[in-house]
Amino acid sequence: MTTPARVPAPTLALSANDYVHGYSSHETRRLTDQADTLAALLHSDSAYPVGSKVLEVGCGVGAQTIHLVTTSPEAHFTAVDISSSSLAEARARVVAHAPGAHVTFLQANLFELPFPEAEFDHVFVCFVLEHLAAPRQALTALRRLLRPGGTLTVIEGDHGSTLFHPDSAYAHAVIDCQIQLQSTAGGNALIGRELHPLLTSAGYQDVTVRPRTVYADRSRPALVNGFTRNTFIAMIESVREDALAAGLITPPDWDRGTADLHRTATDDGTFHYTFFKAVAVNPPSATSAA
Amino acid sequence: MTTPARVPAPTLALSANDYVHGYSSHETRRLTDQADTLAALLHSDSAYPVGSKVLEVGCGVGAQTIHLVTTSPEAHFTAVDISSSSLAEARARVVAHAPGAHVTFLQANLFELPFPEAEFDHVFVCFVLEHLAAPRQALTALRRLLRPGGTLTVIEGDHGSTLFHPDSAYAHAVIDCQIQLQSTAGGNALIGRELHPLLTSAGYQDVTVRPRTVYADRSRPALVNGFTRNTFIAMIESVREDALAAGLITPPDWDRGTADLHRTATDDGTFHYTFFKAVAVNPPSATSAA
Repeated sequence: MTTPARVPAPTLALSANDYVHGYSSHETRRLTDQADTLAALLHSDSAYPVGSKVLEVGCGVGAQTIHLVTTSPEAHFTAVDISSSSLAEARARVVAHAPGAHVTFLQANLFELPFPEAEFDHVFVCFVLEHLAAPRQALTALRRLLRPGGTLTVIEGDHGSTLFHPDSAYAHAVIDCQIQLQSTAGGNALIGRELHPLLTSAGYQDVTVRPRTVYADRSRPALVNGFTRNTFIAMIESVREDALAAGLITPPDWDRGTADLHRTATDDGTFHYTFFKAVAVNPPSATSAA
Repeated sequence: MTTPARVPAPTLALSANDYVHGYSSHETRRLTDQADTLAALLHSDSAYPVGSKVLEVGCGVGAQTIHLVTTSPEAHFTAVDISSSSLAEARARVVAHAPGAHVTFLQANLFELPFPEAEFDHVFVCFVLEHLAAPRQALTALRRLLRPGGTLTVIEGDHGSTLFHPDSAYAHAVIDCQIQLQSTAGGNALIGRELHPLLTSAGYQDVTVRPRTVYADRSRPALVNGFTRNTFIAMIESVREDALAAGLITPPDWDRGTADLHRTATDDGTFHYTFFKAVAVNPPSATSAA
């Protein structure tokens, strides 16, 4: 990327003010819970070679970073985020979990990353595209930082995959509030299903997308607690005030909906959600032309 | 089961007249396509020991039977269905695919199976509960045919797991038609999410349910064709006349919806569906009391 200014720079939803998931310490706990519970499901097959240079874009509080460095202790990571407070938490988390890890932290905008073209062997992006108004342009910009033949890994959810027992129209209504708020902020909570066309249209090759499905019932209490309750329902509950302020739902309907969601995490309840993990290659003959 | 008459005998939706998927030869091809494409996903981890006695309930045209006998060539299967024509097809299919397989075919109602209590080591039920008005009672009845410590395996879909790109309200509307028709016939096209509570309430122990997620995009043309197009969309299209006759949708909306579904199987389309596979144990101390 010789002239970053040439890359379209739409409003980045992933900012401290607009970020739909917020930056509270409760939110930090939720993201950490999620990463721990999902680590094996999402990351167990991501290992980077000794000495390879890996860029993690949108590392946030380091919830995924600690799994990356654990799985690939001899790779050299650069973890970027737009929030300095998140970066401070990420740094502390990595120091606590993997004191010998090779991680450089950097505060920067995804669209204005201060690296030369083809600087990295691999790029890793997890739960970031869902917040961007222009995910394809972001992917194109990131491709220029990858060496020819380098890989991009993307992990995103898709709230349309949510299904549960007992079913409840009220519960779906509160989930729809989150989807609408994220859309209003310029993001897309249904982006998982689009990863293949997105990466393909951004110029990547050999795009492979696979579902990573979380399913929790009473036989898996740690998953019920770690995912259904502390990850998914907590995420939905975190947008209550915004949903009410936007007039998307009434307080009684909100309360009924979240109560019905909690019902799926008790007794005979079940809960299902699918993440999508994509791996793609920057074409060996890549040029700077998008 | 000493007195089969004690088991409640609700109207069995899985009859030649009510069966929502029909019995045409086109339907037979669809079910065979589905079974072939999904075989590895659904059956690769189901192997029964040499000499074990396995009951397959609702074998239909034998689409799953041929995979059962291939995976467990030394087990002894009894394949039951209520339709004599389906059984004839199942027999022919097994003879063609696995001529040495040990399979006894029997025409019978699931609720009036002519076997003594604890006759089988294992029971296998695939795409059957979704058609029953009383799935819990069916599971309870089947448990009495299992020896103490024997296992039950159940595989069912859940149309609520359907998500696709590009998204389309019309496509969801035609899927909803199928869900409503199946419900009207006494079945439940959303039963996958309920397997854990169903099996638990029917008296099984160690109930383990895991999602089996199908995801197809242009990088997997065989799956796009075998599953998205020839299995899922074909199933939806098979209920067109019934949906129109029931007044669930207008012809233009139906056509738009199915066109949008086909759109997900072309170009940059993607398609996602989750099956649920359950394995459970008949308690070692089981008695004839439900």
